[in-house]
Amino acid sequence: IQSGQDNTFIDSFEALHEYEMAQAYAGLPEQFRSVAWRLLSDDILASVFDNLDVDEVDIVALLKEMPPRRGARILQEMYADNAADVLQEMPPRLVATYLSLMPKSEADEVRQLINYDEQTAGSLMSTEYLAVEENLHVDDVMHLVKKQALEAESISYVYVLDKQEHLMGVISLRDLLTHADDLPVINITNERIISVKAGDDQADVAQIVANYNFLSIPVTDDNNRLLGVITVDDIVDVIDEEAVEDYSGLAAVNVSQINDTPWHSAVKRIPWLIALLLLGMTTATLISSYDGLVRRASILAAFISLITGTAGNAGTQALALAVRRIAVGSDKNGLRDFFSEVIAGILVGIATGLSVFIVVALWKQNVVLGFAVGLAMTIAIIVANLAGYLIPVVIDKIGFDPAVASGPFITTLSDLTSVLIYFNVAQLFITHFIGG
Amino acid sequence: IQSGQDNTFIDSFEALHEYEMAQAYAGLPEQFRSVAWRLLSDDILASVFDNLDVDEVDIVALLKEMPPRRGARILQEMYADNAADVLQEMPPRLVATYLSLMPKSEADEVRQLINYDEQTAGSLMSTEYLAVEENLHVDDVMHLVKKQALEAESISYVYVLDKQEHLMGVISLRDLLTHADDLPVINITNERIISVKAGDDQADVAQIVANYNFLSIPVTDDNNRLLGVITVDDIVDVIDEEAVEDYSGLAAVNVSQINDTPWHSAVKRIPWLIALLLLGMTTATLISSYDGLVRRASILAAFISLITGTAGNAGTQALALAVRRIAVGSDKNGLRDFFSEVIAGILVGIATGLSVFIVVALWKQNVVLGFAVGLAMTIAIIVANLAGYLIPVVIDKIGFDPAVASGPFITTLSDLTSVLIYFNVAQLFITHFIGG
Repeated sequence: IQSGQDNTFIDSFEALHEYEMAQAYAGLPEQFRSVAWRLLSDDILASVFDNLDVDEVDIVALLKEMPPRRGARILQEMYADNAADVLQEMPPRLVATYLSLMPKSEADEVRQLINYDEQTAGSLMSTEYLAVEENLHVDDVMHLVKKQALEAESISYVYVLDKQEHLMGVISLRDLLTHADDLPVINITNERIISVKAGDDQADVAQIVANYNFLSIPVTDDNNRLLGVITVDDIVDVIDEEAVEDYSGLAAVNVSQINDTPWHSAVKRIPWLIALLLLGMTTATLISSYDGLVRRASILAAFISLITGTAGNAGTQALALAVRRIAVGSDKNGLRDFFSEVIAGILVGIATGLSVFIVVALWKQNVVLGFAVGLAMTIAIIVANLAGYLIPVVIDKIGFDPAVASGPFITTLSDLTSVLIYFNVAQLFITHFIGG
Repeated sequence: IQSGQDNTFIDSFEALHEYEMAQAYAGLPEQFRSVAWRLLSDDILASVFDNLDVDEVDIVALLKEMPPRRGARILQEMYADNAADVLQEMPPRLVATYLSLMPKSEADEVRQLINYDEQTAGSLMSTEYLAVEENLHVDDVMHLVKKQALEAESISYVYVLDKQEHLMGVISLRDLLTHADDLPVINITNERIISVKAGDDQADVAQIVANYNFLSIPVTDDNNRLLGVITVDDIVDVIDEEAVEDYSGLAAVNVSQINDTPWHSAVKRIPWLIALLLLGMTTATLISSYDGLVRRASILAAFISLITGTAGNAGTQALALAVRRIAVGSDKNGLRDFFSEVIAGILVGIATGLSVFIVVALWKQNVVLGFAVGLAMTIAIIVANLAGYLIPVVIDKIGFDPAVASGPFITTLSDLTSVLIYFNVAQLFITHFIGG
């Protein structure tokens, strides 16, 4: 970017889509970026920052490249919900600095949004929405829509409020466009309105928007006063975020930052592995306490990994189904779900145990050994399956995210129970099969 | 639903949101439903069916409860993309019956949509969009928007076509509302339009819509002729669907139908478990071939599950990261990614191996045994980590969905290599530690 080509740069930059602008800006080397932000308007820079994701890009660092006064102007031009997301990433001192440099009304709006917990409806909502009183006509409302269309984050719905800002209904832009100008809007106001509370979990909000195919959903306080609106583009991000969380849980590794350096990537994986290793040491201790048994029948060692592995796989399946059932909210059947899972586990255990029995009996020409391994496998699977189901359900009941019950945790835990079951069953039969 | 209360039923049903109507209708007992569809209009029933998901509800069965003629009328009132989804679930004979009962133009439209492969942009797109020629003014276009607003699936954008239906640009409704009536629309047409091809993978389309925060995206043929539009509500479903696929892959169980009977649920899990069991048998065979070693030092048996388990966990982590990297399209660095993953694996392996060395050396008071187990662990983790990374990358390269490389598959495979590494390392050191 040389000075003679400033205008070419601005023109070609502004011709890009907002998302492309954002990617281009964040991707510039720092020395070019320090030229770029001097050339670009507050407006354009605000839309650059609106289109970056705080989880993926260090927006705070980008802001700190400019003088605080400029940064504050850009934050103030951004949608309030996005500005709040950025400020939530900063140390409190810096937040205070930026807010003090913004006009009071904008600063107050953003300050309020910062106070909502992450992962709640409040933290997602935008305060730039269209709202009218109920005693208007179609043309009055259309006039207002046209006037505010550029500021509002979504123009698909206009909300109807009473004098105390209580949410009374919603009018779709589609209905406004297809009805006569002089019709009182009360006639096309839908009063069976679906809204969420500011404290609601973002995953639940996403589920509602996805089910109802909404383009946006209003957020109210406990007294039904309208606080803001969540638009579908934020919901798309939430669905992705929640899916990444569940997926990360199942693998015991956070997959959200995938372009880490090898060092950071390793640091992210090691704590979980070491924790699981210590749990695994209990299993090793348990096995070594059966040393006498292994000395008498070393063939038993051959099936340790088969039984622990298969039971772990079955437990992972049960876990994945339970976590998913909780995520989509179809876990409300309590005892029926429980018995259904117990029966499925028994069926899976018997089918797998029977296969092992046949294979081992034929391979080792030893029916009793096959029976012992098959029986141990059946019981180990039933137990692992039940653990895979119960652990996320219990974690959810006590108020945590069931996705923290990771697959590796279940498999490592089920190693312990599987080994215990295996050696006890083997002990029962040992006199019969070491002769065989 | 008694006959005297027919109107009450219709009124209360129609007061529901479309999604609630759909849930209510699908949830009715069959004998009530046979009354319900006689009472409800084609319009209402079409919107009921539009709001059901073919993956979750057997819409074909619901349609078959009515005479074919009525079913065809409802299909014809539905959005063409949804009608096509329903017809894709039917046997060809039934498809032909319904299409023959529909007016030719509607039947042709649906017939074309049926031909697109599932999981492509074509199968998601709606053909009810707003399009205009470029030589109009704002008021002409607004007039058209108002006229077609009720049929179009989305009114947020109007597409500008030339005489041969080539896609030339897009006008946002927001711009139409905020500009003077007599302005030529060419002035507010965005010609840097982002579109997708009908054959594009739905996951890629979803990524674009999510990144750009679009409310809809146009779909063209290879000659840039506009074929249809995909709306964000369909994208929300795709993101969820793709996440469920990845998640199912990691757990080796399809989690999309979570309210199965225990029998169906078991049938879904057993094939994978048995397949993995057979792979696990190879590991068992391998261990039993080291029987001599286990007889000499039965303590070796104690660490089998520790090493296989921990290596499996590390492999699962690498797998999850690789699948995610491919899913979001940041897997384009080839060799750099590969080396980065190798280094991360080595770091993870050394950290974990070192922990094991310390724990085992202290616990068993045997430094050589600790060293052997730690070294085996380090190598096993490096190998499992590499496999977890490479397998999905290779599967992706040869054109399959990397999510089919499941976590349990990786862990079972890594059991095999881990055991091989473990016993070979142990063999090297055995003379040193059985004395200790």
